[in-house]
Amino acid sequence: MICNNLSIGENSHLFFAGQDTVRLAEQYKTPLYLMDEDKIREKCRIYQDSFRAYLPEGSKPLYASKACSFKQIYRIMTEMEMGIDVVSCGEIYTAREAGFDLTKAYFHGNNKTAEDVAFAMECGVGYFVADNQAEVDRIEEAAAARALTQKVLLRITPGIDPHTYDAVSTGKVDSKFGNAIETGQAGEITGYTLEKKHIELCGFHCHVGSQVFEEDVFERTARVMLEFVRSMQDRYGLITKQLNLGGGYGVKYVATDAGLDIAEKVKSVGAAVSEACKELDLTAPEILMEPGRSIVADSGITLYTAGSVKKIPGYKNYISIDGGMTDNPRYALYGSRYTCYIANKMAEPCDMEVTIAGRCCESGDLIQRDVRVPSSVQPGDLVAVCTTGAYNYSMASNYNRIPRPAVVMLKEGRSYIAVHRETYEDLCRNDI
Amino acid sequence: MICNNLSIGENSHLFFAGQDTVRLAEQYKTPLYLMDEDKIREKCRIYQDSFRAYLPEGSKPLYASKACSFKQIYRIMTEMEMGIDVVSCGEIYTAREAGFDLTKAYFHGNNKTAEDVAFAMECGVGYFVADNQAEVDRIEEAAAARALTQKVLLRITPGIDPHTYDAVSTGKVDSKFGNAIETGQAGEITGYTLEKKHIELCGFHCHVGSQVFEEDVFERTARVMLEFVRSMQDRYGLITKQLNLGGGYGVKYVATDAGLDIAEKVKSVGAAVSEACKELDLTAPEILMEPGRSIVADSGITLYTAGSVKKIPGYKNYISIDGGMTDNPRYALYGSRYTCYIANKMAEPCDMEVTIAGRCCESGDLIQRDVRVPSSVQPGDLVAVCTTGAYNYSMASNYNRIPRPAVVMLKEGRSYIAVHRETYEDLCRNDI
Repeated sequence: MICNNLSIGENSHLFFAGQDTVRLAEQYKTPLYLMDEDKIREKCRIYQDSFRAYLPEGSKPLYASKACSFKQIYRIMTEMEMGIDVVSCGEIYTAREAGFDLTKAYFHGNNKTAEDVAFAMECGVGYFVADNQAEVDRIEEAAAARALTQKVLLRITPGIDPHTYDAVSTGKVDSKFGNAIETGQAGEITGYTLEKKHIELCGFHCHVGSQVFEEDVFERTARVMLEFVRSMQDRYGLITKQLNLGGGYGVKYVATDAGLDIAEKVKSVGAAVSEACKELDLTAPEILMEPGRSIVADSGITLYTAGSVKKIPGYKNYISIDGGMTDNPRYALYGSRYTCYIANKMAEPCDMEVTIAGRCCESGDLIQRDVRVPSSVQPGDLVAVCTTGAYNYSMASNYNRIPRPAVVMLKEGRSYIAVHRETYEDLCRNDI
Repeated sequence: MICNNLSIGENSHLFFAGQDTVRLAEQYKTPLYLMDEDKIREKCRIYQDSFRAYLPEGSKPLYASKACSFKQIYRIMTEMEMGIDVVSCGEIYTAREAGFDLTKAYFHGNNKTAEDVAFAMECGVGYFVADNQAEVDRIEEAAAARALTQKVLLRITPGIDPHTYDAVSTGKVDSKFGNAIETGQAGEITGYTLEKKHIELCGFHCHVGSQVFEEDVFERTARVMLEFVRSMQDRYGLITKQLNLGGGYGVKYVATDAGLDIAEKVKSVGAAVSEACKELDLTAPEILMEPGRSIVADSGITLYTAGSVKKIPGYKNYISIDGGMTDNPRYALYGSRYTCYIANKMAEPCDMEVTIAGRCCESGDLIQRDVRVPSSVQPGDLVAVCTTGAYNYSMASNYNRIPRPAVVMLKEGRSYIAVHRETYEDLCRNDI
């Protein structure tokens, strides 16, 4: 089992968060997203505690909403006293509807329109992370029109390559995001922003990548960014209050992935920050980080029903499930790996190799190749795909006009629906 | 210009279907899907006319809904007297709500659940394309329960490799779809189905791939399938009434793509069918084909507003737009190529190379690399991405909690909304 919230019951069923997945599938139908709320809260607590223990005063973790966003998540983040990172007005709207205190929100994105800026300001979003000069202009204009001073961080590209997928590697100089230190553009936009009357420049943000395992990525990033902070202090007299190092610690998708000890990682970042600040003669700024995946990924699994089992002699075996790239496009997009189980046959030996295929009319709609399952697998069996709490529900589509599954939360032995299953009526709601 | 429904107006604006895209963007806002209804109808007419001219009597083209599915599309298909291919109950529901006569529908998919089969039967879907034995059982059971006889085609994998993308190449033996001739499984399932009392086996279906340009793919497929038809006649005395060759002729996305003359292609398939039937001493079955992309792709363009223009000296230039992989995931999924224009600056020379980036918080959210645009491009300019009528709206997601754009139809110089723009309220409709 790749995560401690997975276990095998006496009835040989897969249990998740202490509950029988077979029973949950019967109750709520498949396909189904399950989220372990206790695990989400535990992860938040680990971040909060280690931030308090190892980082400068005022440092705080921000939940990266884009990993999984719906109203109930923001209520949980409120209770856990987490800040949040939001990337669109849709996320801001959802958080607001859930009663989240938006003064604790950081508004990201490489292209905030004038409408976005106005909406976010009306909602009272605490911090804007400005990506480029056009955004700085829009923020200044909107703040001036409302006679307020908007807190802003600037997005900087530190030139760090975290050696992860290209698609989720964002700290390199050649990026659609931010302003590179190397080209001098980071310094320029800092000076440009400091001249704005309705902007309070609180600090800097960077994001070097997602699903990061490498030893010292955040430590190297902190060092580079603190050198930049020092140079901005020298050049403009700017005292940086906040340094946001972005996301994203990696999570264990398959047995061969490393497991990370978040508290240890935060401790190590804290040490790197202290050391750099000492060397650079800097008062340490508050450190922000933006975990998303590492909070929700292994808090989620997806349940499917097997519809057909196809054996093609001399080629492959396929299990077709009642979901696929519509509820989980990550294999189609990135070739992502997942651990999969036949949830109602956990005691049987896995003596057959299969490809788990989605139900979309598209050959690329696969969930995983080369999965070991019991050879007794048959239509009606329950397929569990693990570690799907991040970037599954949030990336889901209605391709093939397939409704999105329900999201069910598991908490202290109980279960409840957080997002209702879409209906066919929902699909046509905006059609004339 | 890659398509004849694109032109440049005297005001140097891009015109689509004879209408000024700049004016349409002002009226309906961006991002915006535009669909040229006259072009859709013209394409249907070409298929209908060439089927009548070149294929055996009773042959018919079926619009492959999954390329672009919403209620208004099915009303157009009704008026054009097209059959349709549907791949889910969501598509069946949408077509039914639009008043489409479902006896002309063919129900596809590699995993129809018992609920799907029941729903489709209740809706009176004319033909089920059974993918596997489990589905044949479900269809027999549901038909028996309703005391009716269900018309069925069987999905066969002919072993043809159309040399297109792996993700959309579906006729090879190693496929999640269908039953291979090569392994003997196609013959087996035919015998199995013929024993069912409540199934009328009308024929066979295959689909060798999407975006097919190669000279003789459908001709080779027809030949292989007709040999199979002959062998089933010899083995079981089965007279095949319908042979469905599936989709998908390629469309011109960029200037270097070939353009296909659909009527000529259908004529060539007709000749191959005649020749093979003569050689094999077969009465020619009705030929069905399932064009989707080639009907709607160049009937659509997407309009975006540029939000920032970022020049990274020594690296790349980026234009960030107000849409991206949420409304068009094809570049992220397949690295698909598109022709892009700055729609309000069509008279200016294209003297700068840029990457057009989406607004999602993900580095992989790009629409196209290495696009030539005028160096005067600036925030507020209108970006048109062409040939987006297929697999854009239908694949759209709410990733980053971004609402899906409206779909506006252009018809005989007028415009009207076919699908309303999603609201933030829509995003939260199913949230507790």
